[in-house]
Amino acid sequence: MPRVYNFSAGPSMLPEEVLEQCAREMLDLNGTGMSVVEMSHRSKPFEEIIFGAEDLLREVMAIPDNYKVLFLQGGASMQFAMVPMNLMRSGRADYVVTGQFAQKAADEGKKFGAANISASSKDKNHTYIPRQETLALDPRADYLHICYNNTIYGTKYHYIPETGGVPLVADMSSCILSEPVDVSKFGLIYAGAQKNLAPAGLTVVIVRDDLVGHARGDVPTMMNYKTYADERSLYNTPPCFSIYVCKLVLEWTKRQGGLAAVQRRNEEKAALLYNYLDRSSMFKPCAEAASRSMMNITYVTDGDEITDKFCKEAAKEGLVTLKGHRSVGGIRANLYNAMPVEGVRALVAFMERFEAANS
Amino acid sequence: MPRVYNFSAGPSMLPEEVLEQCAREMLDLNGTGMSVVEMSHRSKPFEEIIFGAEDLLREVMAIPDNYKVLFLQGGASMQFAMVPMNLMRSGRADYVVTGQFAQKAADEGKKFGAANISASSKDKNHTYIPRQETLALDPRADYLHICYNNTIYGTKYHYIPETGGVPLVADMSSCILSEPVDVSKFGLIYAGAQKNLAPAGLTVVIVRDDLVGHARGDVPTMMNYKTYADERSLYNTPPCFSIYVCKLVLEWTKRQGGLAAVQRRNEEKAALLYNYLDRSSMFKPCAEAASRSMMNITYVTDGDEITDKFCKEAAKEGLVTLKGHRSVGGIRANLYNAMPVEGVRALVAFMERFEAANS
Repeated sequence: MPRVYNFSAGPSMLPEEVLEQCAREMLDLNGTGMSVVEMSHRSKPFEEIIFGAEDLLREVMAIPDNYKVLFLQGGASMQFAMVPMNLMRSGRADYVVTGQFAQKAADEGKKFGAANISASSKDKNHTYIPRQETLALDPRADYLHICYNNTIYGTKYHYIPETGGVPLVADMSSCILSEPVDVSKFGLIYAGAQKNLAPAGLTVVIVRDDLVGHARGDVPTMMNYKTYADERSLYNTPPCFSIYVCKLVLEWTKRQGGLAAVQRRNEEKAALLYNYLDRSSMFKPCAEAASRSMMNITYVTDGDEITDKFCKEAAKEGLVTLKGHRSVGGIRANLYNAMPVEGVRALVAFMERFEAANS
Repeated sequence: MPRVYNFSAGPSMLPEEVLEQCAREMLDLNGTGMSVVEMSHRSKPFEEIIFGAEDLLREVMAIPDNYKVLFLQGGASMQFAMVPMNLMRSGRADYVVTGQFAQKAADEGKKFGAANISASSKDKNHTYIPRQETLALDPRADYLHICYNNTIYGTKYHYIPETGGVPLVADMSSCILSEPVDVSKFGLIYAGAQKNLAPAGLTVVIVRDDLVGHARGDVPTMMNYKTYADERSLYNTPPCFSIYVCKLVLEWTKRQGGLAAVQRRNEEKAALLYNYLDRSSMFKPCAEAASRSMMNITYVTDGDEITDKFCKEAAKEGLVTLKGHRSVGGIRANLYNAMPVEGVRALVAFMERFEAANS
């Protein structure tokens, strides 16, 4: 089978040259005579991998020195609990609800204190991002939590909320590495790796120094950011393979020209699809224009029958995993960093043919 | 570089034919046109992998139907907290301390209630397993926690503690799949995957039905066994690659003849090394004979200098990662399932040559 264009929401495409390197090194990493998955996490070759991945992430994202980079497990869903367990010191926090994951984060926050909903886009099925002036912010909140890019709905913040000094916490699972971001505007950024970073099983946390070390004594060791910060993510065995692939993906990202170049490619890819959606009679984009995501592009047709037909015929042409999430319906094309522009061109060309044949 | 014999405590050797299959399928799993690490965890091909891995584990370990099999993240260290968070309903539990990890489990238990130390082998630096009659057991405890095999010290239980109905919880990270075990004697078994099961990043939990669903309302969603039991470990994105390799390792285990055959091979491997240790003048085994582990074999020499020389010269012959843990010193040979008998023969032959040359 030739490689397909896989529009999955995550886990999702990885750069082909990264996968080729994984295959090549699977039985022997750099002359060690063993696979990376067989290697002690306390060995020199693995330290080079994990510390190398951290250094590369710092370089590629221009992470300031007063931020820790942590490699964890459990996905963004685990962060929904770890954030309040570590940061909710006064017992109150603000949440903006822009979709299912943002809602889950707020629900989990309620287990630990008062999780105030500062704004919600639920009134329009999360097709937009609330504007700064509509956010009801508590100046005494321990943090404001946002989901910076909403995978299911295809929306993204096009501004960084001003909080008046309250730490801003952002779930960037589905947009990390997609463009440059000013890390210094955030108190904490977290991301499940399985979209732009690495295979599933790794969560990256970027957290400002002063926010680490205030968890209560009854917080589990493995839920305390300090455990990871003190041991450079080697308190116990980390998800070694995902960290290894993360390092390869970061090396690939650098070869692409870094995040500025990656952003240009992502803008080009997204524009190809959005431009077609804006002129199509069959396919209608879901997200409001001012809140559109470059990573996750959601659109609908007139009905389930034509959507199903579209997805089936697309799959036959090697354009797969296009079915939208059940909360939105329709179609979702996820254009993460590893999706080549050729994949988007092939999708748009197919949409044009399909629309002509079925109108 | 030819493949080495890697005696690492974990992550550790995986069967070569499993690694070859991983390499072969890295860019295209079974004609899907994508890698297993690119595949939606909600897709049919991945459901076949995760449900297939569960079915195989049930078959290979003969897990009774009234037990759930859960695939989690965070390693055994995360279980040190999840066990009390889910099982400590009356606020008291018993722990047997047979090493550092057993101690960490007890320390974590204290965050959630009274963690009573039923017995400890600390008096002899954990070189033995306390006997049944020395265990001070609380009949009203919510569970008794044991570490069934102690990686650092090279000891293992050669009996299953009788608890008089109190659920028995066992950390089997370093001995799972090494021999048949009567699962029905346990309330809960957990294991970090990175020794006998799969690459690091996966934790397997086998838990009796009636112990699931009693966590307090403020337990994080991702720390509640019920979350995983209700969704067959697909509440959020699981560690897909480790689960895929786990399935391949279980298929390999079946091809080996199942756990009875695996046990015979492990006994043969361990006997080769222990028999030599028992007659050597240079190398002295650490663990008491009645408490010896087949998986982790610890031994010392007269001093650090000769130990260092041994490890260095062994490495030149492709016998690597033999240095003992700092708490025990000396040498540790970890003989997990994937270590071929030829590796143990090569080690013993080298030890004989080394002893002859350095006596």
